[in-house]
Amino acid sequence: MTDFSAGAAWVKGRVVPIGEASIGVLDWGLTHSDATYDVVPVWRGGFFRLDDYLDRFMASMAAVRLDVGLDRGQIRAALIEMVAASGLRDAYVAMVALRGSPLIPGTRDPRYCANHFIGWCVPYVNIIPPARIAEGVRVYIPDDIHRIPEDCVNPRAKNYHWGDFTQGLFAAKDRDCDTTLLTDHAGNVTEGPGFNVFAIFGNRVVTPDRGVLEGLTRRTVLEICADKGYQIEVRALPLHELLEADEVFLSTSSGGVVPVAQVNDTRYGNAAPGPKGMAIRESYFDWMLRPDLRLEVVYAN
Amino acid sequence: MTDFSAGAAWVKGRVVPIGEASIGVLDWGLTHSDATYDVVPVWRGGFFRLDDYLDRFMASMAAVRLDVGLDRGQIRAALIEMVAASGLRDAYVAMVALRGSPLIPGTRDPRYCANHFIGWCVPYVNIIPPARIAEGVRVYIPDDIHRIPEDCVNPRAKNYHWGDFTQGLFAAKDRDCDTTLLTDHAGNVTEGPGFNVFAIFGNRVVTPDRGVLEGLTRRTVLEICADKGYQIEVRALPLHELLEADEVFLSTSSGGVVPVAQVNDTRYGNAAPGPKGMAIRESYFDWMLRPDLRLEVVYAN
Ligand SMILES: Cc1ncc(COP(=O)(O)O)c(C=O)c1O
Ligand SMILES: Cc1ncc(COP(=O)(O)O)c(C=O)c1O
Repeated sequence: MTDFSAGAAWVKGRVVPIGEASIGVLDWGLTHSDATYDVVPVWRGGFFRLDDYLDRFMASMAAVRLDVGLDRGQIRAALIEMVAASGLRDAYVAMVALRGSPLIPGTRDPRYCANHFIGWCVPYVNIIPPARIAEGVRVYIPDDIHRIPEDCVNPRAKNYHWGDFTQGLFAAKDRDCDTTLLTDHAGNVTEGPGFNVFAIFGNRVVTPDRGVLEGLTRRTVLEICADKGYQIEVRALPLHELLEADEVFLSTSSGGVVPVAQVNDTRYGNAAPGPKGMAIRESYFDWMLRPDLRLEVVYAN
Repeated sequence: MTDFSAGAAWVKGRVVPIGEASIGVLDWGLTHSDATYDVVPVWRGGFFRLDDYLDRFMASMAAVRLDVGLDRGQIRAALIEMVAASGLRDAYVAMVALRGSPLIPGTRDPRYCANHFIGWCVPYVNIIPPARIAEGVRVYIPDDIHRIPEDCVNPRAKNYHWGDFTQGLFAAKDRDCDTTLLTDHAGNVTEGPGFNVFAIFGNRVVTPDRGVLEGLTRRTVLEICADKGYQIEVRALPLHELLEADEVFLSTSSGGVVPVAQVNDTRYGNAAPGPKGMAIRESYFDWMLRPDLRLEVVYAN
């Protein structure tokens, strides 16, 4: 039997071990970062909100004019087949659309390239190790690196343009912080490498509207907060306001809701994870098990 | 004998056909566009300014904190060995440094990843087909897409963050233009997908200083222009000034100096390539043969 413990990939109709999935060095997906992707979690043997993730992926492909020659149903079936074959019960499941290479070698017209699709899954990823939450997650916001603006690269079409995040991460790690969060050129908070951000002020929950991916965990959190009776504000969030919040937390498909203890020199609630953020985190993992939001995978073994 | 007519690659000490060179789908070089690269031309059997390109590549790797475990001499030797084996007399020669994957799976610290190097070469690339020059190269500058700013991604460390260029190229191709050129948020001209830009006003030559890669063809052109007695101005170049120039041309290692006939609705010299730009183009191809700037390749066949 094939060993899929490290992960599996779906390439041209076949499921292969993750280590065998690659792209050529001339693929514009690499050389122009000309790709879009999405990541849906599988949790306790079922996809969470699969159709919402597929909707976003289809919209991203349309936004950057990628056509991989597979329709929504075929992509959906490929992901399910791949996860079932992998045996992974908790997984990080990626769908990737790449520009490929020009159909006529040497030409440089993005309209005429061999676009293609790759799916892959690996054991569930936590971008912040869960053990760090109780210890106190620390976030660094640099003042000399900003998020790539919307009118350069569309952040709603999920993309691999992470150069700003990577340099922010280096700056954060050099300062013993867990991760980075970037501001835009107007001083508003945007997002970080793999997550959206929320601030809680009493009964109000605020999350940025512009310059960010419309995260699906963000959507789930907004629904949870509405349920809990919070007043919701989706709008520009100036950095100084974030620093005055009662609590701050991150949202991501790779770890759920992550309460933050410190941003730069500002400590929230005595540098411990906030109770409201922790309650939202708990609800998130409950919601991941809601039958109406799940698609159970039928595993072979 | 191996067929290298489509190109060759240098991977972990071996020269292989270009079609066999790939990277894994989990490589941050792909998933975070976390890579830097350079491209040196080989022309009539010799490298042009190889040491200048290597200097820039080493500086780019340092700027984004990549260490591929090879020193400058080893990278230089790898490129020479690869081109000699390929048999290509006119080639586009890429050196690529990639972040690789975390040394501890599941962690997300860019400081601890398996950085690696790949070299590859393909037959010489012209980003604008030379035949288009006499016909009149047309450039489209969109007003709703801007170049990624310097304080988001450092343009001097050559990188694959081309999302802005790609959307600009779609807009250009939709309007039957050859390529795109992007402005910054202050309305200054920056660069395009694979080239720098110059404007000529009488005896003055102007090229942007900020928000651009310091192209090596740009450097050669500045030296040629100094030789020809032009007054040189490396400074911000507002779009309106570009549109008032006598002549405009592009500079790139993939095609040299390319005179432009039209930018948006502005036609230069009756929509024909300008005589000064054409003379600089001719000098560029002469300089490519200057023994003091070349390293002849010793081919096996
Ligand atoms: C830049 C960015 N923002 C936000 C998010 C969070 O989105 P989601 O909750 O859909 O995972 C991600 C997820 O990878 C991301 O990459
Ligand atoms: C963004 C960008 N600007 C400018 C250039 C021109 O640089 P060079 O003359 O060194 O090829 C390139 C070359 O690929 C480029 O990619």
